[in-house]
Amino acid sequence: MVYFGIDVGGTTIKMGAFGEGSKLLEKWEIKTRTEDGPEGLLGDICMAMEDYLEVNALKPVDVAGIGIGVPGPVNAVGVVLGCVNLGWGEVELEKCLSEMFFHRPVKAGNDANVAALGEAVYGGAKGYQDVLMVTLGTGVGGGVVLGGKIVAGSNGAAGEIGHMPVWENKARCNCGKNDCLELVASATGIVREAGHVMEETKLDSKLRRMANFSAKTVLDLAQNGDEAAVETARRAAKALGLALACSAVTVNPEVILIGGGVSRTGHWFVDMIAGEYRKKTYMACRNTKFALAKLGNDAGIYGAAALAEAAAE
Amino acid sequence: MVYFGIDVGGTTIKMGAFGEGSKLLEKWEIKTRTEDGPEGLLGDICMAMEDYLEVNALKPVDVAGIGIGVPGPVNAVGVVLGCVNLGWGEVELEKCLSEMFFHRPVKAGNDANVAALGEAVYGGAKGYQDVLMVTLGTGVGGGVVLGGKIVAGSNGAAGEIGHMPVWENKARCNCGKNDCLELVASATGIVREAGHVMEETKLDSKLRRMANFSAKTVLDLAQNGDEAAVETARRAAKALGLALACSAVTVNPEVILIGGGVSRTGHWFVDMIAGEYRKKTYMACRNTKFALAKLGNDAGIYGAAALAEAAAE
Repeated sequence: MVYFGIDVGGTTIKMGAFGEGSKLLEKWEIKTRTEDGPEGLLGDICMAMEDYLEVNALKPVDVAGIGIGVPGPVNAVGVVLGCVNLGWGEVELEKCLSEMFFHRPVKAGNDANVAALGEAVYGGAKGYQDVLMVTLGTGVGGGVVLGGKIVAGSNGAAGEIGHMPVWENKARCNCGKNDCLELVASATGIVREAGHVMEETKLDSKLRRMANFSAKTVLDLAQNGDEAAVETARRAAKALGLALACSAVTVNPEVILIGGGVSRTGHWFVDMIAGEYRKKTYMACRNTKFALAKLGNDAGIYGAAALAEAAAE
Repeated sequence: MVYFGIDVGGTTIKMGAFGEGSKLLEKWEIKTRTEDGPEGLLGDICMAMEDYLEVNALKPVDVAGIGIGVPGPVNAVGVVLGCVNLGWGEVELEKCLSEMFFHRPVKAGNDANVAALGEAVYGGAKGYQDVLMVTLGTGVGGGVVLGGKIVAGSNGAAGEIGHMPVWENKARCNCGKNDCLELVASATGIVREAGHVMEETKLDSKLRRMANFSAKTVLDLAQNGDEAAVETARRAAKALGLALACSAVTVNPEVILIGGGVSRTGHWFVDMIAGEYRKKTYMACRNTKFALAKLGNDAGIYGAAALAEAAAE
């Protein structure tokens, strides 16, 4: 018996085969091929799963379930409402993939939500039922898991914490607003905001002598006390603390999990975010735990497998 | 067969007896007696239920379930973590009331959450599964219902939207913060904020010639174009729009329901709130419906009955 956990990204599709007790048996990647639409991409996935079955002398009936995360909103009945990065419109993902793969059961979810489920079930929030996850990458993603289940929302937009209004920014978000958390707290946002800090203040900084720099550089310098970098990190942490406080009075999670590339700067940044959060949140939410995500790039395949398993129970 | 729906308030306890299909058979009130602690208050409730059974020639076994809402946080296993207004500390409410009333099944919830469930199942959001409710009364309460079920949160603090940070106020909330939504959008907050508007601006207003006034007066005047009243209503609507946008990117409800005394000013105020919401929320949440609560003071007993019924299914 095997579960497949699939995480569809803009450039690669991560795939995992999981055994009993969600043991990861094997993981691999295939290229994201968008030119032949949903059917082409799902066909590539089916071929990869068939190859795995053949090599391992398994039959389609041995597949207990397939979970799949995609970069777009997915509603409660497994319909993708659109994926900009894949060039998809509305796709009946669960139905299509199941029909294409021997009618095995398929559960689909938004990639950020699925990653949050992976971290909640197998990663940094293992053992918790109510988890809020925020992923600090190129953008800011998020996911809400309550009672061990993904909250999808009526348009699949639950957990879109990156677009929470925090304060007005000079820059404008891809979504059209100019007050999104993402503008201050994503990797892209941190780099741009460091530029704003240097324009607006006379704070000394090694960044002033660099032609270009990454968010990691800003945060590494901040950890070492570089003035403009500290101010940039403080703004990001303040925006995150505020946004997480707003989410917390809505769903009151047990634990808030910080993931994504930016989180790899480590505990000091999480502590800074938690400090800002505690200033802004309601007293009954002040004891919310903060933790770092643990599964890294594998959160998506673990979460997809968890989704498939929960459906099979 | 009968369900009891009970809504414990600071001054009165509202009680309802419901039949098949949640038909309200009878409702009545008893006084909230706090001097003998939880046992005294629950004893009064038991006596009232016994009286109802006797008058209607019913036996304890005819009671299919009891639902009860209390003014404090309640966790997932029916333990009240404290009710300031009742002078209660931690109370194992479901267990105690069941033991005191012939071991009939009891389900407990926070009063604002239970009222939200009542409106979601039988009131202004009937037919919707994912509902965010905000109650504009003396304070600002809230409740989140997802998939037809109350979201309680790890400390029973889910839906505490009144304490969402919006912007700093001159006044301080009972919770200790000075940035709570409640400071601008509750009945008390609207009256106080009208005072701030008159201090800070030269806007003309009939309010300037009144020794004291209610939130209803402010909103009635706002509807008729009174300048300071309009500015006060605008601030309340702006704070509500912002807070609801923050909740919406977290749980993405189908409908946002506005209830409580302040909401009785009607649709124009809801439209004003919805307008501010649409400016601040993420595009995928922009089509969220807004509606007025319908059950008024009966939302609590309806919601408590719904809670009991769901547990009995």
